[in-house]
Amino acid sequence: MDRILRVDLTRRTVSEEPVPERYRFLGGRALTATMLLDECDPAIHPLAPEAKLFIAPGLLGGTAVTTSGRTSFGFKSPLTGGTKEANVGGLLGHRLARLGIKAIVLEGAALDGWLLLEIDAQGARLLPADELAGKSNYELHRLLVGEAVQTKAAATIGPAGEHRLAAASVAVTDPEGRPTRHAARGGPGAVMGSKGLKAIVVDDSGAPRVLNGERKEEFKREVVAFSKVVLEDPRTHNLSRYGTAGVVKFVNRENVQSMPTRNHRYGRWERADAISGQYIEELGKGRGGKMLPCMAGCIIKCAILFNNERGEHVTTALEFETLALLGSNLEIEPADLVAELDRMCDDIGLDTIEIGNAIGVAMEAGVLPWGDWEGTMRLLEEIRAGTPLGRIVGNGTEHTARTFGIARVPAVKGQGLPAWEPRTLKGMGITYATSPQGADHTAGMVTARGATPETLVKQSRHEQLVMMAIDSMGVCQFSNALPADLARFVSHRFGVEWKDTDVLAMARRAIEAEREFNRRAGLDPSHDRLPRWLREEPLETPDGPMVFDIPDELLDRVWGEG
Amino acid sequence: MDRILRVDLTRRTVSEEPVPERYRFLGGRALTATMLLDECDPAIHPLAPEAKLFIAPGLLGGTAVTTSGRTSFGFKSPLTGGTKEANVGGLLGHRLARLGIKAIVLEGAALDGWLLLEIDAQGARLLPADELAGKSNYELHRLLVGEAVQTKAAATIGPAGEHRLAAASVAVTDPEGRPTRHAARGGPGAVMGSKGLKAIVVDDSGAPRVLNGERKEEFKREVVAFSKVVLEDPRTHNLSRYGTAGVVKFVNRENVQSMPTRNHRYGRWERADAISGQYIEELGKGRGGKMLPCMAGCIIKCAILFNNERGEHVTTALEFETLALLGSNLEIEPADLVAELDRMCDDIGLDTIEIGNAIGVAMEAGVLPWGDWEGTMRLLEEIRAGTPLGRIVGNGTEHTARTFGIARVPAVKGQGLPAWEPRTLKGMGITYATSPQGADHTAGMVTARGATPETLVKQSRHEQLVMMAIDSMGVCQFSNALPADLARFVSHRFGVEWKDTDVLAMARRAIEAEREFNRRAGLDPSHDRLPRWLREEPLETPDGPMVFDIPDELLDRVWGEG
Repeated sequence: MDRILRVDLTRRTVSEEPVPERYRFLGGRALTATMLLDECDPAIHPLAPEAKLFIAPGLLGGTAVTTSGRTSFGFKSPLTGGTKEANVGGLLGHRLARLGIKAIVLEGAALDGWLLLEIDAQGARLLPADELAGKSNYELHRLLVGEAVQTKAAATIGPAGEHRLAAASVAVTDPEGRPTRHAARGGPGAVMGSKGLKAIVVDDSGAPRVLNGERKEEFKREVVAFSKVVLEDPRTHNLSRYGTAGVVKFVNRENVQSMPTRNHRYGRWERADAISGQYIEELGKGRGGKMLPCMAGCIIKCAILFNNERGEHVTTALEFETLALLGSNLEIEPADLVAELDRMCDDIGLDTIEIGNAIGVAMEAGVLPWGDWEGTMRLLEEIRAGTPLGRIVGNGTEHTARTFGIARVPAVKGQGLPAWEPRTLKGMGITYATSPQGADHTAGMVTARGATPETLVKQSRHEQLVMMAIDSMGVCQFSNALPADLARFVSHRFGVEWKDTDVLAMARRAIEAEREFNRRAGLDPSHDRLPRWLREEPLETPDGPMVFDIPDELLDRVWGEG
Repeated sequence: MDRILRVDLTRRTVSEEPVPERYRFLGGRALTATMLLDECDPAIHPLAPEAKLFIAPGLLGGTAVTTSGRTSFGFKSPLTGGTKEANVGGLLGHRLARLGIKAIVLEGAALDGWLLLEIDAQGARLLPADELAGKSNYELHRLLVGEAVQTKAAATIGPAGEHRLAAASVAVTDPEGRPTRHAARGGPGAVMGSKGLKAIVVDDSGAPRVLNGERKEEFKREVVAFSKVVLEDPRTHNLSRYGTAGVVKFVNRENVQSMPTRNHRYGRWERADAISGQYIEELGKGRGGKMLPCMAGCIIKCAILFNNERGEHVTTALEFETLALLGSNLEIEPADLVAELDRMCDDIGLDTIEIGNAIGVAMEAGVLPWGDWEGTMRLLEEIRAGTPLGRIVGNGTEHTARTFGIARVPAVKGQGLPAWEPRTLKGMGITYATSPQGADHTAGMVTARGATPETLVKQSRHEQLVMMAIDSMGVCQFSNALPADLARFVSHRFGVEWKDTDVLAMARRAIEAEREFNRRAGLDPSHDRLPRWLREEPLETPDGPMVFDIPDELLDRVWGEG
């Protein structure tokens, strides 16, 4: 029977609660967003003991639906001051779901020593973990999971989380037992760190190997049919070969210009080929490079396993966003150097998008020169050590800008801009401005060009609802699951009759919960805006100079408010 | 004829404009707040070239009304993100007024070299000033004013302003030619620094020596009568003898507890006597200590000239707030040590309240131990040098707290708490919460105890209006001028028939302008709150444990909004 695990870090207790009926058809992001609004005072300081961290697999977690093992982390963000959900692949989600855990609620704070939360088929318990203090993620996952990766998975914070930095992530074990999957955006690691929790270790020995549907046969049939659709999708082919890095050459073209360069000053970089998927594929051939799934059961396998020239593992998540923000945005290439930065961020427990933006601002402030890879490595070491400069950058884009008196801040609601360029891809700008999450490309991808502003507003709204649905089911956006697909899965899984409209209605309610939390936290419509410089500083394109020029009134129409 | 001086730092031009009729009866804070709303997009980054800095003497500036030479600096605050006015004594206000300058508008930014604005009876001009770069305030005022203090006055930024730090002040020359008067709160120095303006030098040679009233005789009579009232006021006697430091012994009593200690954890300090006005008076006797006016014509003379044991000048503005925030709050005594910190802040160009709070947070974070005077001096030197740690602390309380992951933040709207304790003096808490300025004791002093919450709300509203009126006339709060007094002065000065209700109506409109700016800047009613810990963490008093317990609904009633 599904249950909610409530962990009080102050009293060091773990209790189990039945799942309230109103949460039954919620999972992942919709569940954490709703619980956050239900349980957490929006006026609280995000790092206060009274703040809470909610962890939930998706509604389809634990099943054989491909990519359905993602895990949502929901909290009040120390980065944005508003609602936040960061979700992550890896081994955690399926295992929590198979142990019957609908959600974990972390509340209170252990202020006099680090703790570890151990969860298995026998129950859950908090254990002292002072011996883990100061350890980084690669060592942590080796110690906590190691050879037991077939049954165990960990979620840990590195030094960044211990320092309670707003760019701190939670690292989740990948199928090779490494900490390369991160719930990163908005600072979940800082919140976990503020509670004194260093790690969660889940062992699903004894749990069902896979969860089935109420209507078992129909469910299985849908699983197989959906996998076939995914495998036949040309987008899958591209991802399976090049990972997300496959878009570099495309977005670096002069009519797209979505390759942020020199702190988003340009959208193209003449050296971008050296961080492209094609280049990485070639490099990998002699080094044991390969494509891997980030969780059991994923048939897309977009994770790039990247080895160095000696054939030693460097990283397994060399994503487009990382290549853009830590690569072109800082004018660092080739891919080998960015891969080392990526590994360092995984090890310290940092959001690569936020850190790439923050270092871009630091370079703009003259803290280090453009393209300075050694300096960037040293800066990451400063974050690990918690020096003043490390803490500045580790607290993200806006914090770094304020520290150095920089007015041109690449952030929305305090969260650093992803690579997708809002001046040429204006639909992305609409999503960045109006998502309750702040600047987040996964909140609703709209890459259409040439559509009218009104059409782009509708597309952004629709995609934001679809992404809420996808994040709530626990599936990956790259499955390209449609609301109708999700409705069929939910119907057979729970023995109900859902339609795509039910999925979208659930998503709408969850978005409203996020927006209501933001409202109560003091984020009014004036926060649903891009920074002004994106309206004033043009990118030169073959279609002329382009700025973000969607009127505010249209932005306010995304969620129907004036 | 009064005029507005518009200084475009980008184009390096100075132009003069007639005063629009609607600004005729506005001065000081009311004028800068109104112009800010009229001219400055509330969504702008406070340090962007499009942001503006307004400088205005009060409506009674240049006259013989005692204390009427204060100057208002209005801007969008890099500290609070909202409207801000910081006013200051010293020699600037009277001289601007006597030159017929109603307001200076600084706009644009010089990005490739520092400039100086020179103003005299012949006009105004921007001059290159790269040779002043990096200089601190004592040296600057010696160079720019020096022996010419009888006609010249400067307004300068120190290194903190050059670094664009949110706690950076603008230093104004005192009657001894020293930079001991500061427009400090909310970061006017950062805004001036972002514009590339290092200094303003005013020379009023050739201007009228004093401005008179339209109804000259009546005006003079009121000036004399008011001076008599001020001189007879027992509050004046206390200020003239001990300065604001005279309250230390009073507020350190166990039934007041308004002596913030150890980052506001306690309201009393057993060693407070060593930073009291009485102690300072005794110390001064053998060292040439004395009481001085901060501007010509002030008959109160509350400025403590503090010499060291060798009889050398240390500072001339050893205020209660400085003694509390840099003294008891950091557990630093005796007064000699705090005086050295104060001089350093004046020299670097820093708000002592903000810096005292920020260092308190840094001590709480373990950056340096409680009571560590040498470490505090070193930290101030880091601010001067613009090191990463210096920039963290120099950006204020909330920024320091975020950098070090501290959830217990002594700030309202991002501005550090003054000494007056909102848990015992709940009326002060109402003002801190609801003033458009953020936590500001000068925005409306309500020190009554034992009154009902409803009464305190009314008192706070009234005092906030009175303070707006006082700040708009350019007079000092310690004159204790009543709206009726101000109405008589305005009437005779301009040949009109104002009553106290006209003064209060003007103040109300100006407060509404400030609130409207804040609304458009994204500060909704949820920002009109004290930090939660003031509601949860009691001070132990003879009347039992006390927290700030004024309900939110009552706070919203201060300005009549639900």
